[in-house]
Amino acid sequence: DRWVTPERRGVRESRRTVGLGAGVLYRRYRYVDRRGRATTVVTRRFASMAEPHAVAMQTTFVPENWSGVLHVHTAIDGRVTNTQVEQYAPFAHRHLRPDGEGHDPATGLWLRARTTQSDVGIGVATRTEVFTPGAPTDVRRRVTIARGRPQETYAIAVREGQPVRVHKTAAYHTARDRAISEPASAARQAVARAAPFTELLAAHVDAWRRLWERSHLELHTDGPAPVLALNLHTFHLVAATSPNVVDLDAGVGARGLHGEGYRGKIFWDELFVHRVLALHLPEASRALLLYRWRRLDAARQAAAAIGRRGAMFPWESGSDGREETPPEVFVPELRRWVPNHSAYQRHVGLAIGYSVWQYYQATGDVDFLRTYGAELMLEIARFFADLAFENPRTGRYEITGVMGPDEFHDSYPGSDEPGLSNNAYTNVMTVWLLRHALEVVDLLAHHYAARVTDRLGIGEHELARWARITTRMYVPFHDDRVISQFDGYDRLAPFDLEGYAARHGDISRLDVMLAARGDSPDRYQISKQADVLMLLYLLSAEELRELLGDLGYDWRAPALLRTVDYYVHRVSHGSTLSRVVHAWVQARTDRVASWECFTQALAVDIGHAPGTVTREGVHLGAMAGTLDLVERCYMGIETRDDALWLNPRLPEEVATLHTLITYRGQQLHVTATQSDMTLVAAPCDVPPLTVRPAGQAPASICGGQTLTFPLKRPAEETAR
Amino acid sequence: DRWVTPERRGVRESRRTVGLGAGVLYRRYRYVDRRGRATTVVTRRFASMAEPHAVAMQTTFVPENWSGVLHVHTAIDGRVTNTQVEQYAPFAHRHLRPDGEGHDPATGLWLRARTTQSDVGIGVATRTEVFTPGAPTDVRRRVTIARGRPQETYAIAVREGQPVRVHKTAAYHTARDRAISEPASAARQAVARAAPFTELLAAHVDAWRRLWERSHLELHTDGPAPVLALNLHTFHLVAATSPNVVDLDAGVGARGLHGEGYRGKIFWDELFVHRVLALHLPEASRALLLYRWRRLDAARQAAAAIGRRGAMFPWESGSDGREETPPEVFVPELRRWVPNHSAYQRHVGLAIGYSVWQYYQATGDVDFLRTYGAELMLEIARFFADLAFENPRTGRYEITGVMGPDEFHDSYPGSDEPGLSNNAYTNVMTVWLLRHALEVVDLLAHHYAARVTDRLGIGEHELARWARITTRMYVPFHDDRVISQFDGYDRLAPFDLEGYAARHGDISRLDVMLAARGDSPDRYQISKQADVLMLLYLLSAEELRELLGDLGYDWRAPALLRTVDYYVHRVSHGSTLSRVVHAWVQARTDRVASWECFTQALAVDIGHAPGTVTREGVHLGAMAGTLDLVERCYMGIETRDDALWLNPRLPEEVATLHTLITYRGQQLHVTATQSDMTLVAAPCDVPPLTVRPAGQAPASICGGQTLTFPLKRPAEETAR
Repeated sequence: DRWVTPERRGVRESRRTVGLGAGVLYRRYRYVDRRGRATTVVTRRFASMAEPHAVAMQTTFVPENWSGVLHVHTAIDGRVTNTQVEQYAPFAHRHLRPDGEGHDPATGLWLRARTTQSDVGIGVATRTEVFTPGAPTDVRRRVTIARGRPQETYAIAVREGQPVRVHKTAAYHTARDRAISEPASAARQAVARAAPFTELLAAHVDAWRRLWERSHLELHTDGPAPVLALNLHTFHLVAATSPNVVDLDAGVGARGLHGEGYRGKIFWDELFVHRVLALHLPEASRALLLYRWRRLDAARQAAAAIGRRGAMFPWESGSDGREETPPEVFVPELRRWVPNHSAYQRHVGLAIGYSVWQYYQATGDVDFLRTYGAELMLEIARFFADLAFENPRTGRYEITGVMGPDEFHDSYPGSDEPGLSNNAYTNVMTVWLLRHALEVVDLLAHHYAARVTDRLGIGEHELARWARITTRMYVPFHDDRVISQFDGYDRLAPFDLEGYAARHGDISRLDVMLAARGDSPDRYQISKQADVLMLLYLLSAEELRELLGDLGYDWRAPALLRTVDYYVHRVSHGSTLSRVVHAWVQARTDRVASWECFTQALAVDIGHAPGTVTREGVHLGAMAGTLDLVERCYMGIETRDDALWLNPRLPEEVATLHTLITYRGQQLHVTATQSDMTLVAAPCDVPPLTVRPAGQAPASICGGQTLTFPLKRPAEETAR
Repeated sequence: DRWVTPERRGVRESRRTVGLGAGVLYRRYRYVDRRGRATTVVTRRFASMAEPHAVAMQTTFVPENWSGVLHVHTAIDGRVTNTQVEQYAPFAHRHLRPDGEGHDPATGLWLRARTTQSDVGIGVATRTEVFTPGAPTDVRRRVTIARGRPQETYAIAVREGQPVRVHKTAAYHTARDRAISEPASAARQAVARAAPFTELLAAHVDAWRRLWERSHLELHTDGPAPVLALNLHTFHLVAATSPNVVDLDAGVGARGLHGEGYRGKIFWDELFVHRVLALHLPEASRALLLYRWRRLDAARQAAAAIGRRGAMFPWESGSDGREETPPEVFVPELRRWVPNHSAYQRHVGLAIGYSVWQYYQATGDVDFLRTYGAELMLEIARFFADLAFENPRTGRYEITGVMGPDEFHDSYPGSDEPGLSNNAYTNVMTVWLLRHALEVVDLLAHHYAARVTDRLGIGEHELARWARITTRMYVPFHDDRVISQFDGYDRLAPFDLEGYAARHGDISRLDVMLAARGDSPDRYQISKQADVLMLLYLLSAEELRELLGDLGYDWRAPALLRTVDYYVHRVSHGSTLSRVVHAWVQARTDRVASWECFTQALAVDIGHAPGTVTREGVHLGAMAGTLDLVERCYMGIETRDDALWLNPRLPEEVATLHTLITYRGQQLHVTATQSDMTLVAAPCDVPPLTVRPAGQAPASICGGQTLTFPLKRPAEETAR
């Protein structure tokens, strides 16, 4: 092949850079052929944030020491395959079926394709422009319409030292786009009217600038600060969930938009994402919750299929919201298929209900709650209430046959039955959800919620049962008041995690290491990721203590500290989400450990951390988690009970944290230092907001006002 | 053909009824064959309001005097053609291309098709169940999979006098549906899990019940009241714009969902529809406005194509929002093609801007305004401001080259140039829109509108020009202060409309009648429909007087009365919207004429009024207009300047009017009689609302409160 690509032998000084400010990818390389002719190639490319259907690339060729003819080949490749994930190699990797292609003289190439299974039409059209220092006659174009790969080749007369620029603009449409007729013709029209490269770029940069204003977290330290990683995380979060999703039917993919890992499927990562989005890009948060709302029917069917009422959301899902968790997975390290009970992670529904409430608390959007949010919360609440059954012996409600977030434990050792009894996370979050579902019913009673409860057929009897569960749910404890991950966790065999790690190094795939020698993590007091401790990530210690108190469980500070201490030594961090949670729970008890976990969590998709699989896509949940950690944990910003709670606790390494949040329609610049916290409210006409700084009297803030609170020193603080 | 259809010879006692309560169509007929065997057939069918993808039909066969085998044929017909509109006969009438069909043993038939041009996939699946008094073995099924028409035939053993019931349930999905994979498989799954007929029907009736609660207008008279027509109009309005549109990309078709007239295209009818929806089904209003928002880019391109800034919405449009007004139309009566300048009705954009503001005033939905509404209003304002140019001689702004709503006048007599100068409706509504666009900018300045104006690049200079236009727009008047429909309308030839009508009878197609003898309405002081008077329909007299006053035009009550009087004698009512407007403007000056126009407007799609073309679909704008007339004119409910204005003026024929509106989140039961008006606010936690009864002090109302106002007697009233 005569063509030079960046991967070709003879290519030197290759360098790739992405500008986080606007996601522009720069590439530069130099090619020297066998006759010593050197050419420098520089490209800039971006997927437009301002024109979501446009992508553009500028390539500059500089023939350094030669003159002659440069051939540039450009195409639309409908034969593209998905081959980024090694372990999917045995499976289908061609997902497009080309269905038409051609050339428009005025613009350029176009292709129509369909997705193989879902039959979604896709149209792509390109416009290629060549800018030479000489006459346009120096450029000749040849068009070849190959099936599924229309192509153009440009023969360009170049002169030594004189740069030639090629602009390729492409427009994409799918049959799911609105306000179009047919996707290929829409793409052809769009590319014909697309602005020139520099204008497209300017609009794109401007759109990103506006998004950064609303989502930037500033972190200042005296020494080196992990600012790049934080910005990278913000960048990926915004790229995957920007306000461009508002009119789409888009969910939160576990790998964002950045890789083929998990084949684009949706898990529970939105739990971490919505906590950040709700305060920064609430319109995106709302849109992503609608993705779940549209799949309520599928979730209702799933519940009905196991004889339950309400909505059971799937652990892994795609287009139509049905459960797509494979019943077996192939583990390359073991060279065999192993059963996969992940679908028993019913708690994904709790995450959705929690996110709806987070969005509502952050925005006060009653209309969303009435039209969509309440239905989600109530149908999920109904399912978990139906899962709970009263143990006649104890008079308490129990939930059996489920998995918690910890994927090391999907059944009891030696049992054929998948699922565990009384996973504390599931039971407590069920109570949390039922409490808030009842609150929603009360709240909407004065906003015509009758429509919702009437439509769903939720009556007094059902609500009374929910209320009963919120005071009589069973939560398992060890003898020392440590919350037990599930019934019997403390009777599993002990495991020397630190010793094992010292002997084997990386233990992120501990389950596989054990399985390879015929053992299983099921047997041990070890967890792949935070499970019980997730409760302290989602709920403030105060809120959790109160919830347990209402259940009749006395769970004061020492029990909390013992619970944290117990689990931090038993987690292998096999999930990227785990370190975020550990940094969180230790923020007030072990600031050094917290900062260490935080900096580890920041490295998840950067550099060469062991087990890094970034080529499969980023870990969007974990990325959002680090931002959330800074904002809701270190800055201590919490949205609860119609108030903005502030309880900052900056790591010692950090001098200042700053962010701009939107709380109930009011933009607030929030700055926290080691000694105080300042809120500056932008001019705005929304009603005054309630602010509750920890240990101080509640205050109120209006548009245009500034509030400053001194912070208590650590010595004065009790465990959170 | 052996099959019996309701149209077959020998069918007797055929009767068709639709229940407006829930849109269930009943059909009953009796067939007697040549051997005297009589069979009664009764069907009930509906398109579910509760399950928007389901339709169902129950057919009961009673063999009255025979026993034997009944054959029932059922199919999915993908070869269906659109042939309801006679004048479209020469054009394409097949819009589906079948693309797969089959049979699922457990349920039944399915078909996949694509629309011919837009290539939208459609999936249909059916489930047919036969209920016989005897054993299931009495039924035999034969399946025939014909290309594009899969079919089943059931041979059913029947016994004299014993009814047999057949339930046919169908599910529909299109590739534009969300939360599905592929439409045919989605339809097959949906029909498999669809509830039994009676449950589907119950849910459907229940969904309609809830919609009626929110949209019912009650009208009581001492004598016979046009209640049926009003209910029919509400029924059609709700059916075409129900909350099921919320997640769709649906616009307001001129013929609703009820016919093939205009081929489903969108005109300006939403102007009439949103006024009603905003107070009753605001979520539907919002969704239908988003349809326009999604087509802003197409409208921007259309403006750019004629060298203008901002957004120029199309007069007739379909899927992708481009202008689809045919440049010529075939007039069967004339047997020739005539030029069609309707696309110069730029005022469609004013209607959209007006509707956005109506929705905002009714709901107070700042979030909608910020995210979508402001962009619509500002881009439309920008277009009309750019159309306006300053006449250096007069120092006033003018708009030329447009048409008003009156389609009799699309150019000056003898001119080759389409369009007229200074159509009063366009100029005044441009001022109205610019005033409110400036108000939106002010309002959002304290709600982060910077994002909107910044993104659209609207600066101080542009806003200043808008403000200037609002004080210096030119409005044409006749010598006696009658607002002139456009420059020079009063210099056109007079026309004896009443005399002509007396001689020729129906003059609803006056333009055609004139054209047939080589003449044209262009030459005369006659109008097809309300044009100037539309201003008094959209704006209160008070508001219009103030707007004209700010332009430096003194336009007091006598000029208003002269203006009304001038035009009511010059309108041929060639549009169904016209009588609504005439009923409106005369409600306070000529109550008898008003009531007469109102009752005529109610008859537009009922019975055998001359020119009725109901088989082409209903006149949705006119239907909504009659409801609007009752509510906003006779009951005098107006939403303006952040207050609910009340100025009822019941026709003498009417004893009581009652409705339930939702104003700014508060449900209000409003009852008006000849002597007083009562508001009952449902319990609700929204902030107190401002109520402004005419001629009385402003009041405030909270959830749970009741307010009653005595009404002034007619004698005390001045012209509105």
